[in-house]
Amino acid sequence: MSPPLHPAVAILAPLLGTWSGRGAGEYPTIDSFEYEETISFGHVGKPFLAYRQTTKATDDERPLHAETAYWRVPDHGLAELVVAHPTGITEVLEGFAAPNSAGDTDTLIIDVRSTAIAATSTAKDVTRTERTFEVTGDVLRYTVRMAAVGQPLTHHLSATLHRG
Amino acid sequence: MSPPLHPAVAILAPLLGTWSGRGAGEYPTIDSFEYEETISFGHVGKPFLAYRQTTKATDDERPLHAETAYWRVPDHGLAELVVAHPTGITEVLEGFAAPNSAGDTDTLIIDVRSTAIAATSTAKDVTRTERTFEVTGDVLRYTVRMAAVGQPLTHHLSATLHRG
Repeated sequence: MSPPLHPAVAILAPLLGTWSGRGAGEYPTIDSFEYEETISFGHVGKPFLAYRQTTKATDDERPLHAETAYWRVPDHGLAELVVAHPTGITEVLEGFAAPNSAGDTDTLIIDVRSTAIAATSTAKDVTRTERTFEVTGDVLRYTVRMAAVGQPLTHHLSATLHRG
Repeated sequence: MSPPLHPAVAILAPLLGTWSGRGAGEYPTIDSFEYEETISFGHVGKPFLAYRQTTKATDDERPLHAETAYWRVPDHGLAELVVAHPTGITEVLEGFAAPNSAGDTDTLIIDVRSTAIAATSTAKDVTRTERTFEVTGDVLRYTVRMAAVGQPLTHHLSATLHRG
């Protein structure tokens, strides 16, 4: 039996579950690409959500990226993410999580920016990242911007996923 | 069907699977404690292992710590870990992975030290960590040393787990 969601992360409840969909990536130093993605958000009754993500190629389903993270709400309206990447990079992102109501539609918006990026000595140079998430019902959209390998902060990823 | 293990991480093959067992923790600033632990190491055919860990209390099984990480082998004999903690901390650890044969017994020894620790603004102050893993057959032992909250590098955790 699942424990109740910890009240500290109640604002993140719309994220819970497993999501799948498609995304597109681009960056000045690489060819643009498309991917299929699965994301899951779970909890154990403690004040954080556990997040896992994998992507695969839309053509031959070979595994592409993966990442794993925890999401925290240190105070009302704030959000923190700590992320590990198999590319040898970790990200600490901080920002806000806010519900936004327009007519009958409730949307949760999460906007976070890197406050620290640390990497192994063999990893690529990533200097800054920003992520925006929007959850409306069973639709999750996100975008990722990144400054890396000498490039300024540039749009990198966008995806639309559905719950279930 | 599982893809074959990527040759770059072949030396880490003894880690693959799910492990469970007991550990003990201590630190100058807290009461000593015991825990039950489950660790899993998996792969998708790419040059890293995905690692997940959870611990729970030995008395009432309440969830205690969790962490998630990727393990890499950037070059022969070397090991890298990137770890995210729900406490808002990320660790980058680098060191070595080496088989050690004594008589009929093969042991894989992995010894890594933090080269970077990054955290959210609300996390506790962790300044340095070291981890040692030893895998002999279906037995995994590890120890963790940590410098945090003003304390010097001090023994923090030790556990013995069994595969299966």
